[in-house]
Amino acid sequence: MTQTAFIGLGHMGLPMARNLLRAGYPLKVFDLVRSAVDTLAGEGAVAADSAADAIDQAKVVISMLPASRHVEGLYLGDDGLLARLPAGTLVIECSTIAPESARKVHAAARERGIALLDAPVSGGTGGAAAGTLTFMVGGEAQTLERARPMLAAMGKNIFHAGPEGAGQVAKVCNNQVLAVQMIATAEAMAMGVANGLEPAVLAEIMRQSSGGNWTLEKYNPWPGVMENAPASKGYSGGFMAELMAKDLGLAQETASHSGNSTPMGALALQLYRLLLKQGKGKQDFSVVQQLFVE
Amino acid sequence: MTQTAFIGLGHMGLPMARNLLRAGYPLKVFDLVRSAVDTLAGEGAVAADSAADAIDQAKVVISMLPASRHVEGLYLGDDGLLARLPAGTLVIECSTIAPESARKVHAAARERGIALLDAPVSGGTGGAAAGTLTFMVGGEAQTLERARPMLAAMGKNIFHAGPEGAGQVAKVCNNQVLAVQMIATAEAMAMGVANGLEPAVLAEIMRQSSGGNWTLEKYNPWPGVMENAPASKGYSGGFMAELMAKDLGLAQETASHSGNSTPMGALALQLYRLLLKQGKGKQDFSVVQQLFVE
Amino acid sequence: MTQTAFIGLGHMGLPMARNLLRAGYPLKVFDLVRSAVDTLAGEGAVAADSAADAIDQAKVVISMLPASRHVEGLYLGDDGLLARLPAGTLVIECSTIAPESARKVHAAARERGIALLDAPVSGGTGGAAAGTLTFMVGGEAQTLERARPMLAAMGKNIFHAGPEGAGQVAKVCNNQVLAVQMIATAEAMAMGVANGLEPAVLAEIMRQSSGGNWTLEKYNPWPGVMENAPASKGYSGGFMAELMAKDLGLAQETASHSGNSTPMGALALQLYRLLLKQGKGKQDFSVVQQLFVE
Amino acid sequence: MTQTAFIGLGHMGLPMARNLLRAGYPLKVFDLVRSAVDTLAGEGAVAADSAADAIDQAKVVISMLPASRHVEGLYLGDDGLLARLPAGTLVIECSTIAPESARKVHAAARERGIALLDAPVSGGTGGAAAGTLTFMVGGEAQTLERARPMLAAMGKNIFHAGPEGAGQVAKVCNNQVLAVQMIATAEAMAMGVANGLEPAVLAEIMRQSSGGNWTLEKYNPWPGVMENAPASKGYSGGFMAELMAKDLGLAQETASHSGNSTPMGALALQLYRLLLKQGKGKQDFSVVQQLFVE
Repeated sequence: MTQTAFIGLGHMGLPMARNLLRAGYPLKVFDLVRSAVDTLAGEGAVAADSAADAIDQAKVVISMLPASRHVEGLYLGDDGLLARLPAGTLVIECSTIAPESARKVHAAARERGIALLDAPVSGGTGGAAAGTLTFMVGGEAQTLERARPMLAAMGKNIFHAGPEGAGQVAKVCNNQVLAVQMIATAEAMAMGVANGLEPAVLAEIMRQSSGGNWTLEKYNPWPGVMENAPASKGYSGGFMAELMAKDLGLAQETASHSGNSTPMGALALQLYRLLLKQGKGKQDFSVVQQLFVE
Repeated sequence: MTQTAFIGLGHMGLPMARNLLRAGYPLKVFDLVRSAVDTLAGEGAVAADSAADAIDQAKVVISMLPASRHVEGLYLGDDGLLARLPAGTLVIECSTIAPESARKVHAAARERGIALLDAPVSGGTGGAAAGTLTFMVGGEAQTLERARPMLAAMGKNIFHAGPEGAGQVAKVCNNQVLAVQMIATAEAMAMGVANGLEPAVLAEIMRQSSGGNWTLEKYNPWPGVMENAPASKGYSGGFMAELMAKDLGLAQETASHSGNSTPMGALALQLYRLLLKQGKGKQDFSVVQQLFVE
Repeated sequence: MTQTAFIGLGHMGLPMARNLLRAGYPLKVFDLVRSAVDTLAGEGAVAADSAADAIDQAKVVISMLPASRHVEGLYLGDDGLLARLPAGTLVIECSTIAPESARKVHAAARERGIALLDAPVSGGTGGAAAGTLTFMVGGEAQTLERARPMLAAMGKNIFHAGPEGAGQVAKVCNNQVLAVQMIATAEAMAMGVANGLEPAVLAEIMRQSSGGNWTLEKYNPWPGVMENAPASKGYSGGFMAELMAKDLGLAQETASHSGNSTPMGALALQLYRLLLKQGKGKQDFSVVQQLFVE
Repeated sequence: MTQTAFIGLGHMGLPMARNLLRAGYPLKVFDLVRSAVDTLAGEGAVAADSAADAIDQAKVVISMLPASRHVEGLYLGDDGLLARLPAGTLVIECSTIAPESARKVHAAARERGIALLDAPVSGGTGGAAAGTLTFMVGGEAQTLERARPMLAAMGKNIFHAGPEGAGQVAKVCNNQVLAVQMIATAEAMAMGVANGLEPAVLAEIMRQSSGGNWTLEKYNPWPGVMENAPASKGYSGGFMAELMAKDLGLAQETASHSGNSTPMGALALQLYRLLLKQGKGKQDFSVVQQLFVE
């Protein structure tokens, strides 16, 4: 099978790389945190000493990094990976970054004849471990077909969002809606309970009615309504509030770039920043419920 | 079958009463608009000259009125229906009104030994015509059982939300979430399209992802994404923006009563009022999409 | 001088009544809290046992109560004061209440030939003690002229806002602007300081520039910028956050009544409610600064 | 007097350069729009063919450009002005740009021994023509003293905001407060008038009370309240809504950089973007009043 480099072994990257290993892909892996590299080396990956080392001989490069500046730093410039990779290499860039930043990396790859996809994910660390991530992919359809078997080893739903950068745009749109409806659900739960309703009853009514949304299906923010939701486990696990704040920030950058007005999305970002000020950034993003109760 | 009075034959009340007639209930009907009364009289109802006339001999009274003040005016006071109805009568009050107002009417009914339910609906004029409304019911469980056959003639989902007024609370909670997620969806659609995505593709990605919600399932606000949605028919039909503004206003009254903070719900109300200022109050509430496009 | 009844001797009413006493007005005073009555009795007022007792022989009635329901309860109905007062009496109603409520009391007074003013104040307990309150007055100009000497004994600026209820409208408009600009100032102070500016320098630049407003002149929310501001005294004294929340609630009621969209005012209310949830309702309203710092 | 280069002769730069000419400074000027260069050449300036030509022999360089990217393009890089200017040159950068961008240019200047100030202005085209601009200056105090005579030829208030970038931070803080209080004032004017108050009466009450702010003093958004305000001249003149949207965008970038929550500032940006969608970006920013009236 295809020699693959995997760069960025954080909370998401490590389980994603592990699923590729399990599917039989030969991986050479790198992260600045040596222990993550060692963990995967113990499971069959080859440890690399640097990103440049990792891509040696690779036909496919996959990366999962924290933010735009890391991605640009890795790929662009005279020392960047794009300057070192042979034409024809497939690059699957899975980080959640600004669409503009993704387009910059796409343009550089295109110039060098490298086939690149922006392929941010949703589904959190649980989805990464279970191999059930959703990929929202930007780039050429034929490049996506080339990448599909590897994506399928890490995820379940694979959407072709459109051309270069479209994966990132779809991701920020989706996560902005998610944040807003999480807050809206939290507001409604607090208001209903304060006015005498049982939380589980209200949750069920809204879930089955026109207020229904993903948070009511899978992720109710009121403790005890859903046994396995982060809210019922002290808002632990799941998707950290500070990461939601990051994604909402990317959404605002995207809206600024195109001149869009997004009052709900903007307010969601501000409310998440209030939560971060209260020291709750490391808790699951459904902890926004606590803003609305005493 | 049970002799029933139906008071309030507007866009919702008329098709609801018609479904009761079709189910075989003997109805005596009243509305200030004589033509609505005549329409139903032509379909088998008995026309009443006044609300007081309508309730004569009735074992059940159903009402569907525009706002709190009409409901209080109909039932309360020395001339109100509660002062005229015999103990034991069943009253199904279906208007969407302030929970506080509903509790006031409940209290007066309880004093007189009258079994009352607050039973606001969702599902719009389409659901009223098709007999597929959702009822959110506040009051005693045994009273709900007594009313259930008649509710089932008009609707599909019947929820017992809790004690007196709980139906109204559930309704405003649900509709507040609905309004917020409609606006959030409209913002995201506009932002995604402005950044190069196909509307139908973006809509489908979000629908299947964590941004999924009822508006993406049934009621996409972007013209052309869903053939039968109001957005694809010039924002006609459906649920008028001015009625959504009314419900959001009731939600804010409810939040004020309990001291709840609902930033998203409050902002939704203000945005709908901007729409109303633009003369779009009579269009379907998904017309909020137009705030975000040129 | 004119025999006067003063009803409502809370944090505002007591010092207002004291200033009338000092100006030589013969006062008969009532409050549900007996100790407040006794305090003023010790300073020359006549203690009354009830509101009805207080108005006996009064040519002028002044009231200062917490909310709409107290005012309506005092004046309206068969047992209300308006039913007992002789035509020609002057009533100066100083409570901050809903304009609609004020208009209801005005209408009842007019029917009975009683000259009534809605005359809410601003200036806080400091202004009440110092006799420097601002009165915003609704009602007939000639009635205001009749009341002016007494108002002048309690305040400094006396504005004729317009007809019945206009005093209340002016008050809620003013206080909504005040709340919004307090929050805007607090946001800017926090942002500027986080980006390296000295608080006093930033405050002074904005004060002298187009960002200038009353809070920057008199009431900076950043501790230490103004020696005598509540912010420099642990947010004590001044105007309690929960009273600002009450006034913002009245503003929203007023906006709902007329169908106005006030996004900033609505958001201000929601942010104050978040503060109240955090247990800060009894602190000065500039404590909103703490939402924006860690 | 000091040989000076002035680069950027738009609506603001041209009248600023003219005031320096009138004060006797020998100017060599450049703009991409040749007619602007010719205008000033006709008034005594020397026309330059390029920015590089303009700075030849200059002891002082002043620039006034539209946005961060223009400023970075002018000064940075191998072809940028900083690479060409001798150590000891004074650069007064008057554009309104992101603080981060200003700090980047400062750092490059410092490395080369060039004395640079970020010195954004407020006061609009009127203030630029009259020489009454406000300068908010970031950089070393002694550099400011060196620049002061030239700043004084163009403006009236000169504030030392703090170290590198502080001028830009002060500017975005100030303009964010300005935008929010403009909208708050517009909301209150619309609400008061809809509830029966005379616009001029309400404006005057708030101006003298705790709602007082710069917009009520100088720039009332309700047509007819202030004869010389843009609102009374069809919202022409003044400061364009699209420029306010730009400044609010810079404020949000600044807040993102430091992780600040600014709900009012964020909402103000979104409301201005709604206005821009309505085609009102070229009108004075007080045109936001029209959002709130029919």
